[in-house]
Amino acid sequence: MLVEQNQKKHTELWKVSDNVMELKSSIIREILKVSSKPGVINFAGGLPAPELFPIEELKEIAVQVLDKYGPDCLQYSLSRGLPALRELLAKRATERGTPSGIDNILISNGAQQAIELVARAFIAPGDYILTENPTYVGALQAFNYYQAKYTTVDIDDEGMNVDQAIEKIERFKPKLIYTISNFQNPTGITMSLKRREQLVEVARNYNIPILDDNPYGDIRFSGERLPTLKSIGGNEVIAVRTFSKTLAPGMRIGWINGPENIIAQFEKVKQCADLHTSTFCQYIVYEYVNQGLLEPHIEHIKVDYRTKRDIMLKGLQEHFPPGISWTEPEGGLFLWLELPKQLSSVDLFEEAIENKVAYVYGQPFFPDGGGLNTLRLNFATASHEQIAKGIKRLGELFTKYV
Amino acid sequence: MLVEQNQKKHTELWKVSDNVMELKSSIIREILKVSSKPGVINFAGGLPAPELFPIEELKEIAVQVLDKYGPDCLQYSLSRGLPALRELLAKRATERGTPSGIDNILISNGAQQAIELVARAFIAPGDYILTENPTYVGALQAFNYYQAKYTTVDIDDEGMNVDQAIEKIERFKPKLIYTISNFQNPTGITMSLKRREQLVEVARNYNIPILDDNPYGDIRFSGERLPTLKSIGGNEVIAVRTFSKTLAPGMRIGWINGPENIIAQFEKVKQCADLHTSTFCQYIVYEYVNQGLLEPHIEHIKVDYRTKRDIMLKGLQEHFPPGISWTEPEGGLFLWLELPKQLSSVDLFEEAIENKVAYVYGQPFFPDGGGLNTLRLNFATASHEQIAKGIKRLGELFTKYV
Repeated sequence: MLVEQNQKKHTELWKVSDNVMELKSSIIREILKVSSKPGVINFAGGLPAPELFPIEELKEIAVQVLDKYGPDCLQYSLSRGLPALRELLAKRATERGTPSGIDNILISNGAQQAIELVARAFIAPGDYILTENPTYVGALQAFNYYQAKYTTVDIDDEGMNVDQAIEKIERFKPKLIYTISNFQNPTGITMSLKRREQLVEVARNYNIPILDDNPYGDIRFSGERLPTLKSIGGNEVIAVRTFSKTLAPGMRIGWINGPENIIAQFEKVKQCADLHTSTFCQYIVYEYVNQGLLEPHIEHIKVDYRTKRDIMLKGLQEHFPPGISWTEPEGGLFLWLELPKQLSSVDLFEEAIENKVAYVYGQPFFPDGGGLNTLRLNFATASHEQIAKGIKRLGELFTKYV
Repeated sequence: MLVEQNQKKHTELWKVSDNVMELKSSIIREILKVSSKPGVINFAGGLPAPELFPIEELKEIAVQVLDKYGPDCLQYSLSRGLPALRELLAKRATERGTPSGIDNILISNGAQQAIELVARAFIAPGDYILTENPTYVGALQAFNYYQAKYTTVDIDDEGMNVDQAIEKIERFKPKLIYTISNFQNPTGITMSLKRREQLVEVARNYNIPILDDNPYGDIRFSGERLPTLKSIGGNEVIAVRTFSKTLAPGMRIGWINGPENIIAQFEKVKQCADLHTSTFCQYIVYEYVNQGLLEPHIEHIKVDYRTKRDIMLKGLQEHFPPGISWTEPEGGLFLWLELPKQLSSVDLFEEAIENKVAYVYGQPFFPDGGGLNTLRLNFATASHEQIAKGIKRLGELFTKYV
């Protein structure tokens, strides 16, 4: 094919990322295979629970938006996003401890585009990014495209190990600190207040921006809400948020809260990239939030997810053998298991599927490799009964090998 | 601001593009200024006519989509786009002379993202792109980001001058041929069949892919539909299409029809860039097209635009002095004026606004500079009365100087 021969440059770009991309793709293939097998209880997905999507409310809102705004909700709009929505998001951030104006906000196609805009701005080929180990694979995909390298830091019950971060920063001089501070994907761990303050101090001392990827922060169903990294770190921190986990991912509405000069640059890039995010979806989300429908909806999600998390934790306590540990997240969608060192969650995956239960093995979440004995469970999407049954099946499987 | 210091790389990237970006921005600023002045008849916009958006139909479709697909239309979906929509677009392309399968189609956030995906794949810093002179500024923005250089070819009533293209190809070895083959923005010119065949042959001989940006192709209201470049050139051609001009730009649904191996690469980039295009908007567009609503809607648009074009042409004949020439487009939104060489449409702009009529001056559409005596008129958005009145005003202005 002739076109192919012109793609040398693209192939070059892709070189570094192919490995992680392929790993990620193989997980997705496994998940798809699993989902299509009848009777398999699926803890593998990264999705929010679809039965909680407020379909009836959105039906009304969609009609209202078309009635109220007419052609405006179907026309071209601004690259930064709908002013009314940006104003609303700035107001909410201010109320929650991050003083923000409309010029601090840019609407993106979900959080993924926000992460990619940051990667474009800060990462040149060979630049290091400091990440938690493990971390979110979707962000790595965006970073990989810009040929980032990674230096990683362990994560414990309080989040990223900041002392280790300092060592890595001195050694690798990363250009960006990437963290998921709340109910981290994949571990479910939340960074403690002390660590947040320490991390901001480190970022200031070494002059490295923090990208705080925070899709789950609003879904806290136990413990106390902590100040966000952005509210502590101000202009040191670029906060990436999304309605994908609180309202619906299919809307593709995320946003960035960042310094005005950075947002102005992102606006230019966004304009080149796709002009702007769907006007219609932005109006729908705006009306949904502005009419006060989001908060009660999030409360509803929280009750559901908390109940499911509790069922899963109970099952783990009852059916899992000693030597396996897990996190107890106070929010989000995921919890994280560590098997004894000698066990491989990759090797056991097939047998899990034979036993009609699916998880994501942890390995691909580790930029530096490792994590063969770890796995992620999504507690948000299965039914109560399925969770109880699925965890029992997993417990029986692991008991055979521990 | 600390974050700023880490942006050296970004600033580097921006260097080349700043100039054209600023020109474009200044036009937009002018347009906005103009639009806000009461009583100004606005031929400057690049927008389709908002009063034609099928608001009532879309209201029904939005509700139907939520009823019929439930959570699926709000959930995460595939990076390539909704299979049903891709299938439908492949089928329609096949029926119109471009045999296509689902794997030839990728859904993008409007045509802009499609163009940017092509730019990412084919353009390394300093690479040349062959374009028409003048050409679409939004595409230049995407190309500029990747630090493209331009070699340009004149355009006449039959479209791109292919003999000139050969000269430029031999001299500059461009990596991509960018054309808007139907009702070109800004000129309204359509490439003749003979030129299409010649251009494909040239692309084959020199092994350079053609990017055919074709947003207006379905809005042909006179003359005969020509075979698309893609139907002639097959895998030499990457076709970029959109629903922005036929349905509504605020949906942000465009697509690429390209060789399977290229689409597979674009899928990876799209996944990094924003995971996927709005699931909800894709379902709405799918249902709209699949229920057979698009064709009658396009017929409706055509009648409206043809009438308006005719009114504009009549006004030009009546009120414009000798020495000014214009295109007579068979479709699309725009027509193009050439003033006598000594007149500058940039200089006359302010006086036009004083006379309460607005156009876009042609200069920024010329990648190589020039075009000071040209201007673009949008005939699609003003009312019949406004068109007659506005053209009379412009004619009186130009008569003073010709």
